[in-house]
Amino acid sequence: MKIGIIQSPVTADQEANLANADRAIRQAAEDGGDIVILPEMFSCPYRNSAFVANAEPCDGPSVARLSAAAAQCGVYLVGGSIPLLEDGRIYNASFVFDRNGAVIAVHKKVHLFDIAIDGGQVFRESDTFTAGNSVTVFDTEFGKMGLCICFDFRFPELARLMALEGARCIFVPAAFNMTTGPAHWELMFRQRAVDNQLFTAGVAPARSYEGYVSYANSMVVSPWGDVLYRADEKPCLAVVEVDLDQIDSVRRQLPLLSARRTDLYSIHRT
Amino acid sequence: MKIGIIQSPVTADQEANLANADRAIRQAAEDGGDIVILPEMFSCPYRNSAFVANAEPCDGPSVARLSAAAAQCGVYLVGGSIPLLEDGRIYNASFVFDRNGAVIAVHKKVHLFDIAIDGGQVFRESDTFTAGNSVTVFDTEFGKMGLCICFDFRFPELARLMALEGARCIFVPAAFNMTTGPAHWELMFRQRAVDNQLFTAGVAPARSYEGYVSYANSMVVSPWGDVLYRADEKPCLAVVEVDLDQIDSVRRQLPLLSARRTDLYSIHRT
Repeated sequence: MKIGIIQSPVTADQEANLANADRAIRQAAEDGGDIVILPEMFSCPYRNSAFVANAEPCDGPSVARLSAAAAQCGVYLVGGSIPLLEDGRIYNASFVFDRNGAVIAVHKKVHLFDIAIDGGQVFRESDTFTAGNSVTVFDTEFGKMGLCICFDFRFPELARLMALEGARCIFVPAAFNMTTGPAHWELMFRQRAVDNQLFTAGVAPARSYEGYVSYANSMVVSPWGDVLYRADEKPCLAVVEVDLDQIDSVRRQLPLLSARRTDLYSIHRT
Repeated sequence: MKIGIIQSPVTADQEANLANADRAIRQAAEDGGDIVILPEMFSCPYRNSAFVANAEPCDGPSVARLSAAAAQCGVYLVGGSIPLLEDGRIYNASFVFDRNGAVIAVHKKVHLFDIAIDGGQVFRESDTFTAGNSVTVFDTEFGKMGLCICFDFRFPELARLMALEGARCIFVPAAFNMTTGPAHWELMFRQRAVDNQLFTAGVAPARSYEGYVSYANSMVVSPWGDVLYRADEKPCLAVVEVDLDQIDSVRRQLPLLSARRTDLYSIHRT
């Protein structure tokens, strides 16, 4: 399975961002990508006023363009995230499309990013967004895949549930910042992969120094915790091949899922 | 709170190992240690035949000596682990003593270490040990502390439960090997600390190249994921001061525990 990583720059011009994503999806498909992933909020700047200004319904232009790109290129597409307007509420939402452009999953960020680091990053997504309520796993020809958005991945319960529900790779459109990125980004993608013995793929906007500064460093990690690909801060596109058979191999050698003591503890959806 | 880390060498001579531990506990106390921790199986080589040969009951010589050392030095002591004989079964068990030498917790390893890495480490603890059945948290003058043994810490559920039950530091007598150590040891101690916003302290035997080779690298990590102390492979003793106020500070700035979506997922003891 080949994962197309699109670490795109995000500008204030939504149309330019969409056109850029469109070009990148086509390039990733040409380069052999099977599942292509865009960053969190790839089409508008990461600030509350931009989320409001760019919010659109599920039949708006962004979803239509992503669907068309997936269909025309014949790839699965994890469409980063967009501000989704639904019943008067705005969600940080990720749409997933199959090779025919059909929507096969929608994940609305369930853990809103409200942090206030002393002398560092301050942000309150909950000023604008409503939180979603789902644990999201979707089917592909490569098996089940997991999906969550950025801060969601901070919570080990969510990754564990996706793994237990069969996810073989967890896709994470994200946008860590310059406080949490250097401290926690790689660590999180590696440990979630090791704990759950699956692949993890995180894709962030390229770094820009206007407004919210994305740490970037999009990455793909193996079930053993090896970093298979790590971008730097610049815009880039990469197609990373992963060997899904490694999942069974690692689980057989180091039984971290089968050796769970479910007679002592339990984790489940509520 | 000052944590005394004793990365002791382990030889085939149980009496020498106990005497060495005793000296080290006294030195750690002299150096200001409040809670002193020994490695997993600090008193006998890490192999099944040695576990059987050295198994002793809870009123045997090892527990008595550890208790006396804790009382005489006036320290809390996480007594690594020993092969505990109880009702004809052998457990990999960690005894914790208060400043008066009273046993305040016993953790019997709940996840037995059965792995078979292709071309790497192979071991089956379950050939000898019976698994325990507890999630272990104990009270100290510094608040609650968590305790588990080596492979137990591989399972994020256990660390999460200890955190939710109030643990401020999770103490982990352990003995990673030369396959899993370089790959996963630091990663695990850092990510468990970050996920649960508490301190983690792992203590392993110093490296020896007879039989099971301990990775060593005993370490203490802060709730932000910073490595406060990391040993190399040689025998060593360190007293590491931790600022427990950092727990509340980190949890206030980055709300990873309070922002859990317990309406969507649940983790609990069964």
